[in-house]
Order: sequence, then structure tokens, then C-alpha cells
Amino acid sequence: MSLPVDLILNAADEVAIRQHLTLVALARKPADLAIEVGRLFVAHANHWLDDQEIVVSGRRIAYVGPIGSYRGEVAERVKYPNLSAVPGFGEVHKHIESTHITPEYEAALVIPRGNTWTCEASHEFANVNGPKNTEFWQKARLAGSPLKVFIQPGSAVPPSAWEESGGWYGYEEQKAFLDKDLSVVSLDEVMDWPSVWDPGNPGYQRMWGMIGATFEKRGIVEGHGSGLTDPHEISAFIAAGLSSDHEVWALDEAWDRLMRGIFTELRPFSYDAIIPGLIERGLKDWSNVAFTTDDRSASDTLRDGATDHNVRHAIGYGLPPEIAIQCVTINPARHMRIDQWVGSIAPGRYADIVLLEDVPSVAIAHVYADGRLASRGKTYLGRLPRIDWPDWATKTMNIGRTLAAADFAIPAAPGRKTMQAAVLRPFHWNEDFLVEELPVVEGKVQRAPERLITKWSMIDRYRGDGAVASMFWTGCGPRDPDTALACSVAHDSHNVWCIGSSDAAMAKAVNRVQESDGGWALVHRGEVVGSVRLEVAGLMTARPAEALDADMQAFLTRAGEVDWIYAPAAMNRWKPGFPEFLIFATLTCAPWRWVLVAPSKLAPEGFVNVQTGETHPIVW
Amino acid sequence: MSLPVDLILNAADEVAIRQHLTLVALARKPADLAIEVGRLFVAHANHWLDDQEIVVSGRRIAYVGPIGSYRGEVAERVKYPNLSAVPGFGEVHKHIESTHITPEYEAALVIPRGNTWTCEASHEFANVNGPKNTEFWQKARLAGSPLKVFIQPGSAVPPSAWEESGGWYGYEEQKAFLDKDLSVVSLDEVMDWPSVWDPGNPGYQRMWGMIGATFEKRGIVEGHGSGLTDPHEISAFIAAGLSSDHEVWALDEAWDRLMRGIFTELRPFSYDAIIPGLIERGLKDWSNVAFTTDDRSASDTLRDGATDHNVRHAIGYGLPPEIAIQCVTINPARHMRIDQWVGSIAPGRYADIVLLEDVPSVAIAHVYADGRLASRGKTYLGRLPRIDWPDWATKTMNIGRTLAAADFAIPAAPGRKTMQAAVLRPFHWNEDFLVEELPVVEGKVQRAPERLITKWSMIDRYRGDGAVASMFWTGCGPRDPDTALACSVAHDSHNVWCIGSSDAAMAKAVNRVQESDGGWALVHRGEVVGSVRLEVAGLMTARPAEALDADMQAFLTRAGEVDWIYAPAAMNRWKPGFPEFLIFATLTCAPWRWVLVAPSKLAPEGFVNVQTGETHPIVW
Repeated sequence: MSLPVDLILNAADEVAIRQHLTLVALARKPADLAIEVGRLFVAHANHWLDDQEIVVSGRRIAYVGPIGSYRGEVAERVKYPNLSAVPGFGEVHKHIESTHITPEYEAALVIPRGNTWTCEASHEFANVNGPKNTEFWQKARLAGSPLKVFIQPGSAVPPSAWEESGGWYGYEEQKAFLDKDLSVVSLDEVMDWPSVWDPGNPGYQRMWGMIGATFEKRGIVEGHGSGLTDPHEISAFIAAGLSSDHEVWALDEAWDRLMRGIFTELRPFSYDAIIPGLIERGLKDWSNVAFTTDDRSASDTLRDGATDHNVRHAIGYGLPPEIAIQCVTINPARHMRIDQWVGSIAPGRYADIVLLEDVPSVAIAHVYADGRLASRGKTYLGRLPRIDWPDWATKTMNIGRTLAAADFAIPAAPGRKTMQAAVLRPFHWNEDFLVEELPVVEGKVQRAPERLITKWSMIDRYRGDGAVASMFWTGCGPRDPDTALACSVAHDSHNVWCIGSSDAAMAKAVNRVQESDGGWALVHRGEVVGSVRLEVAGLMTARPAEALDADMQAFLTRAGEVDWIYAPAAMNRWKPGFPEFLIFATLTCAPWRWVLVAPSKLAPEGFVNVQTGETHPIVW
Repeated sequence: MSLPVDLILNAADEVAIRQHLTLVALARKPADLAIEVGRLFVAHANHWLDDQEIVVSGRRIAYVGPIGSYRGEVAERVKYPNLSAVPGFGEVHKHIESTHITPEYEAALVIPRGNTWTCEASHEFANVNGPKNTEFWQKARLAGSPLKVFIQPGSAVPPSAWEESGGWYGYEEQKAFLDKDLSVVSLDEVMDWPSVWDPGNPGYQRMWGMIGATFEKRGIVEGHGSGLTDPHEISAFIAAGLSSDHEVWALDEAWDRLMRGIFTELRPFSYDAIIPGLIERGLKDWSNVAFTTDDRSASDTLRDGATDHNVRHAIGYGLPPEIAIQCVTINPARHMRIDQWVGSIAPGRYADIVLLEDVPSVAIAHVYADGRLASRGKTYLGRLPRIDWPDWATKTMNIGRTLAAADFAIPAAPGRKTMQAAVLRPFHWNEDFLVEELPVVEGKVQRAPERLITKWSMIDRYRGDGAVASMFWTGCGPRDPDTALACSVAHDSHNVWCIGSSDAAMAKAVNRVQESDGGWALVHRGEVVGSVRLEVAGLMTARPAEALDADMQAFLTRAGEVDWIYAPAAMNRWKPGFPEFLIFATLTCAPWRWVLVAPSKLAPEGFVNVQTGETHPIVW
């Protein structure tokens, strides 16, 4: 009987694989490989063992014991007496879409950096094409890519009741995902807090439908508690069954969550505020802590690293290396209830092993994934399948028509010389929007560049009706005339956003994005001067990280020639210069209040308070 | 809308309960109770918080914060400024049947001793009445008993392919249990090792069917690795997907399991051999360790304690009290994937709280369970429902006829004066059985009291055909003439065993057991001198622990008048005197080899090697 290929998890294959592994462990069947290592880290026990051999069959570990102890037949034996073996690193919460490359290229990028498994926080692709979401994430793996992707169907599909996207997930959908597939492990980051606590919220039934289906199928409900600092809100969060939070920015936030049993997933940009403080307060047990990336571009990953960076950076803040390694191995694996497959170097698990030349500096010599050598230094040696991504993945820009300047105009009331206008800015988390009086020219409300007032639009890209919502924004965008920036990465609905100093430039930029099947487009003084193609779901490109990075650097060079408005925002990662971070300024989850979404049934003009459901005219 | 009663877990109720808790946590709905405590142990983080209040709604915790911080309405407020609150203790692997009282009385016994939740290792009742197993375990809880019973359908139903019992569990049964009920959490202790590793074993399909169903439904597969000490066998055990082991007797066994990621469940009688050694070897992370009871009679529990004893005893061996508490709270809850309900004092969990006067001595002042005061000192104050156990639970002694001395005779071959006889003894784990030459009288093979050779029988109690298997044993049983001991507790098939110095006494003892609907019976010099009724499944009685203990003490007094043979056995818990431990001498799992089972299709004479399937005549 031939063994299952062991790429996508399912119970029947798991039985056959483990029946076989049992016989290999007993030395009754031959093994494929023995990896001898100088030291082996037992993640479950925070303990180093010297001189161990890891015996591999297929993609799994069959046996672990002292060098020379395995009495069975082994086809190949490799020896690393000077290296320390630690388990393949995992991401407990990552949007691979934010690397902006497809999963097969993600594997080639992150595996040499230690990351062999990822819990894919899948509300990005899912909002583009909800029904195809699991198929999308399994395609590279089915073609042999050694990166294990555990799928977390997004709770934010759509992100709020006031948005319409390419996906809609409720009870039945989540139940089917979990029923069909053991690789589906959780409900991803429940982030629409009003739809959780407020029975009057129009998203309440959908959200609790997904939560209920996840309870029913013994999955994990992941949370997103950004901005929740009041002890009542933190208790409510965990009482609701939201088991984890990665939106932890400050020491007290982390502490208050850990003291109430919330699994706390730290991102490197918050370590400085949190890790030294947890050490100082004497946190004795870190088993409820993990490190994770959440969003990191290909360019940033090439520069800083992947999960290896998360570990190294934590050690830099004084955490013992072993605990830092547990925070990307056993801790997240156990939390996500996938520790039977990943998170430790133990029999039955995938043979994903990071071989370190030096532990405190996380100096990676080689990575094994699926029981094969997958990298030497930063060079990826694993399987990189060529995938012809189908139209359902690549033809997702359904705006339905070519836009014109008139689509971006904001009409004034008849006879008015000025109008009152609602104004937002990036990461405006205040209770109220701003109000400005703006001039009217030829019946249309105008920008006020001298007050940094520019125009911002959200264009639906799913229905094909070319609907545009526009309003005035401040504190960002081009100062140069006839200039606009547009992008199809717009968390988390991933409609198209555009900011511009003229309506004609805005139309041109958005049209270029749709011609490219998605991505970035920059119009400078009337001409398209740069674009980056993200042809897969308008979020990713099927190219190596280095190729995307080169394109992006060229784009940034052209963007550097634009004079960009800047004013500080509530989000401390909002910086002067090219406003790349606008891709996150379209969020509608906590702690956002007033937002502009693409026109929808519940918010036809797009301007809505996502905490209360209140709408308001753009101008009056 | 009225809230669910919140006794038996299910996803729909869980949604309604958590929707409600969220509003209580936010102080938008009134709470039932606030419990103020001087100190609160955060099990997830191994950290003490001072002066906290635990706000309760229904049976759950809604809010935890500093005293006075909850801004909502509270119906009742209690203050324990001098007590330390720790989570309700849990059993990760316990056979409530071994207390020999029904679950409502178990609750009254163990809750004052800190134990508020139990993972019921259910192959005892399940072997008596497999189809009614979940209904049995939920009956007391449905009637309001505050002890939470998480059901682990037994893999050992039947215990081996050579046994027939009152239950048969395979793929379909386990799938249905897990599908139907969130209180079903795992597959209990996979203990028939040959049926796991050996594709030729007749139990292989059934066992892997259950394992596969558990994988499919995201349950935990519990192991039982008694006697597995070779590194190949330990690797094979975990490679097979068996996640835990409670059959750990020696330091190296524990160490070797922990080093391979096996969740290690320690029983108090092995602490002396293990805990000081783990401390000495510098085990830094105890998150993969739990303490558990497995089997403990009502009498022993009254004398030593329940889970509180397990914790206190570990502290006595030098473990820090906080780690010992984690070993009965968060560690087992996380392992069993029920940490959303139990194992910590955190919102969303059941309000099960142990209030300690002194932590290192585990001096329990009060226990709250389901949000209500459940004990003051050793006095149980919780709900003790009166349950009329139905016939399917109480009429389980289906031997089908009254037995006679002739049923226990072992015929000789015609014309023989002596016969060779296979001989076993309690806990005979050797590869081979013993062989003795025994006299023949009137065509029947005789005992040889001078060589301590007595007779042992197993009587089927499920089919109603009154089938008896008999053979000669040594090293146990009555020395007095016309004396016999019989019992319907016979792990794990729970047929009836009997040992006796005459066939007539044996028949009388077994008949008394069946007249009593199960339990113990002692015949001394021809007369029934004592019996203990275990009328529920022949394993338990629906009486308080104290009542059973009184009966048992009276029985032991009569048994003390018998002269009992004694010879040491491989099991170090086998002691001189009344052979109570014979209830475990009927096991057929590893490390047993040759055993006597009740007559079955695959072992018509009952004498079989459970490792190989070899059978052999009793006499020849």
C-alpha cells in the first residue's frame, strides 16, 4: 500500500501515516533519513539534549534518541555535530497577503529564515474571493511547497456590516470549512467588537454564527483587541470566548491580558514597550505568550528577517533564547491545538528543523522542512512549484468600467458658495469626525490644499457597478497638483482606495490599478509614473520576493519625487514620506469610529460610524 | 430570553451564555455574585494578584479585576480577605467508577477536596453498557451536580480483541460521541499496544477507527504506556498519536516521555520515584506535566484526600506550590483542550474556585463550584440530586443462571492421574506462564494448596450464557478450606472474577454477587460472611462515600478473619492480606502477556496471550 502524500491534513491520511511511523519508530520498517545533531532543544520542557539523532520517514519524524541508538535501517545519514536543532518556527497569526507574494514564493522567502509553518489569517484573500479561500491556500502546498499553511477563516468577511466584499462568512460557511479540513484550525481575529458585544449590531448574527460554528467544531476563536484597555472590556473580550490578542501595544495592555488568561501574541514593533516590562514584573511563565509577524512586506522581510527576526529581536530585549524560541514553537502550536503536527522536534510531527550555528544570535545554518534540506544559509533549496493561478485568483478587479474625473466629484447643494464637509485623516480614532467649510466651484465642493484638505475615495471592486465613495481627508496625500496614488490593498475589504490632488489624476490612477489586475499606481502631475502589479487577488504577485522588492523600490523612487503631505496620526507607525501605510488606514475594526467604505446597501454614501452604525452626509 | 441552564456543554448554549457574559462583563447587565479574595492565582502565568474580585453570572466568571473595580450591579458580595483563590482542581484521567460511588456522590466527596472537574476515563462503565455511557455520565450533571465530567470514551471497549463485554466502540461510535457532545473530549487511554502497532492484531481496525475518529473531530488521543521503556517503543507511542501517558512509574520513564513531548500524568504513588528526580535534573518547564488520581476508592479518598492530596503530596516532594497547582489546573485543562471552560480563574470559565487558608499545605477553607458555595471545610454544600438509576444501570449482572460447583471444575483427560497445568499469578507479566503438575481426582484436576496453587475463574456477565473460564493460580487467594472471594469489579471488562479453595464456595460467592446486582462477596468455610453491594453497573453504589466506606470496613473485618495466601508480584502495589487489588489483576493491556478472560469467540477457554493472540490449553 502506498503512503499518503501527506501535504494537506486529513484524518484518514493521518491514520495511515501514523500507522507507518509507528513501525518505523519500532525499527520494523526502514527510515529515510537520520539527522544527527550536537544539541536538540526539547520545546515542551525547555531543555537541551546533547548528541541526538532525529529519524525521519517521509515528511515526519519517526524517532528521536541518542546518536547511534536507532536500531533500524536508514537510507541516508547526515551529521551536524556543531549545530543546535530547534523546531521549525511558526507564525500564530500572519497575513501572507501582506508579504504581497503568493504562498509558494512566501515559502522560498521565509523557510530559510526558520519559518516552516504559518497560521494564515485569511481575511484578506477571503474578502476578495470567499468561496475559493481554502483552495487558494492549499494550492502551493498541494504542489509540494514545504511551508505548512494552517487556515484561519476570517471573521472579518466582510469586515463590518457596512461593507460588501468578495466574501461572506457565517455559521454555515465556517462549519463547512472546519468539517471539511483539519488544516482549518480557527476563526481568525474577531475584530469587529461592536458585532460581538452589541446585540443590536447588524453583524451580530453573522459573527456569533461563526463563533458558534468554531465552538462546535472544537476550533480556536482568535481575537483582536486593539484599543481595549478598560478592565471591563478585557474581561468581556475573553468572556466572549476570544482566546487571544495580537493587538497589544503597551506593557499594561499585555499584562492585563496575561492576567486574565488571554493568549498574547506580540509583534516585534511592540517589544520595546512590553518585553523588558514583563521581565521586570517577574513574569515566571511565558507559556501564554507567542511572537508573530501579522503583516510584513517582502521588502521588510528581506531586510529584517521573518520569524527569525521576531526571535532575535526578543532576545535583544533580554528574554532568554530558549523562552524566545518557545514563543514561536510550542507555545503557538499548543495554543492553536496543532502541537501534534508542529512546534516540537518529536515523533509524529513534521520533520521541520532549524539548525542554528549560534543560539543567542539565531544564526541559521540550515533549515529542514518536510524532512528535507530546505535551505543553506539564505538560499532556498526546497520545492518551488510553478503555479498557473486561475482567473478566480488573478481577475479580481471587477470595477466594471473605466472611471472618469466626474466619478470623484462631490456635488454641492444648489446655490451654495461653501459647504460644510466631514473630514477624516488616517487613523482618526476619535469619537467625532472633523468639520471644515470648503469652497464650491461650478457646483462642486473643492479641496483646500492650504489647509491640507485633499480628497479620498473608496471604489468598489467586486460588484462591477463602479460605485465610488468620496470625501475630504486631511493630513495625507500629494501636495503636488494633478497627482494621485491608488492601491487595491485596502484592509480588510480590499476595495480600491485613492487619494489625490485632482479628480482626473485619481481616475487615471484607479484605472491603471484595474488594468494591472491590482496593485499600486502613482500619477504625478498628470502622468502615470509608476505602478506595481499585484495580480493575484490585487494583493499578491506570483514572483520571488526579490523581484517584487525591486519593483517596489523603483516605485518608491518615483514616489519619492512627489511632495507628500504629512501630519501625525494616532497610529505611531504612521510616518512622513510615501504613505504606504494607507493600506491599513481603510480598516473598520476597533478602535476605528468614523470611516469611509465603498458604497454599500447599509452605507450608500460610504461614510459611517462603525461603532454605532450612524451615517452622515459627506457635505451639507 | 431565558439563559441556557449551562450544565452539559453544547455550542448553541455556549454562544448564548457568552453573549450574556459579555454584557455582564461590560456592566451592562447585573451580575449574581462578587467574590472578593485576598490573593488570586493566575494559573496561565504562575502569578499571584492581590485583592481581586471575581464577578460571577450564572455558573460562569464574567469579570476579574481589582476589588471595587467592577462598576456594574452585583446581587451578592462575599469577602475573603485572608484567603487565596486558586482554580478548581481537575483530574486529567480518573475512573470515577474506582471510587465505587455514583457521580452525584463523587461530587459530594471530591468537591470539598478541591476537585471540581474530572476527565472521566470511561472504559469501566462503557464495558458494562457501551451505548448508555455518555447518558450515564451526564445524568448527575443534568440533575444539577456541580462536578463537571468531561467524557473520554474508552479505547478499551472491549479491552482486547479476545474479550467480549457490554460495549463495543469503533470509528462510528467515537465519531458519534464527539459529534454529538462537546463534553466528550478525547479517546481514553489507548492501552492495547499490540492493537496499535501490529497490523496483524485482530483489534487493529477497531483501535485505529477510534483514533481516526478522534483525529477527525479534533479530540485528544490519550495513551497508556505501561512498561514501555525502550526508546523505540516510546517514540512509536508518540508517533502513533498517543499524546499522553499516566503509566509512569520510574524517573527515567517520566524523563524519556517528557523529552519526546509526551504529556506526563503522574500519580501520587510514583511521586517519590519521580518528582525529586525531575527537580534534581533541572526540569525548567512543567507545562507538560499533570497530576492525576486514575483509581482511588472512596475509603482511600476519605483517608488521604482527592486532588488536594495529589497537590499536597507533590509539594511534599519539593515542588513549588504554584507549579503543583498548575499541574492540576491549567496544564491538564490545556492538554485536554478544555481550558476555555476550566483550569483558570478567568472570564468565560466556570466559576470553580478553591479558597485556601494556606497555600503550601493546601488547606482548603471553601470551594465554589458553578458560582455557588459548594463546601465549608469538608462539608459539602452543593446540590446532591437524588437519582433513580434506571435498570440499564442497575440490572447489569446477566450471568443468566445460578452457578454450581460443577461449573468451576477443570476436567482431566481420561485415565490421567496427573495433568500438566498452566498457572498464573497476580500481575504475572512474564513472557511465559508457569507450569505445574497437578493431581487428578475423580476425573478432575485438583488444586495443590501446599504449593499455593489455587483456582481462579472468570465468569461472563453480559451474554447471559453463564460461561465460566477457570484455571489454576498461585500466590493469592484463601488458604482456609471452602472459602472464596468474588467481585464484579474486574478491570476492564468487568466480568466477575472469583478465587477460591473449593468449587462450591466459588459458586456460592459468585451467586451472591449476582443476587446483589454486583459488588463483593466473601464465602468463608462454606458460608457467605460478607458482601458489599455495588448495584450500579456492578461497579458503583448510589450512596455517600461514608456509607460505602462503613460497609467496606465491615467487609474487610470479616475478610481479616480469612488466612490469605501471599507471594510478591511484579506490581509493587500488590500487598499481603485481603487481596483487594485483584480487581486490577484481570487487566489485559500492556504489560500483560498471558491472561485468563471470560470465554469469548476468539478465546473460548479464556487462556490467551494478549500480546500475540496465542492460546493454550489450561491443562494437558
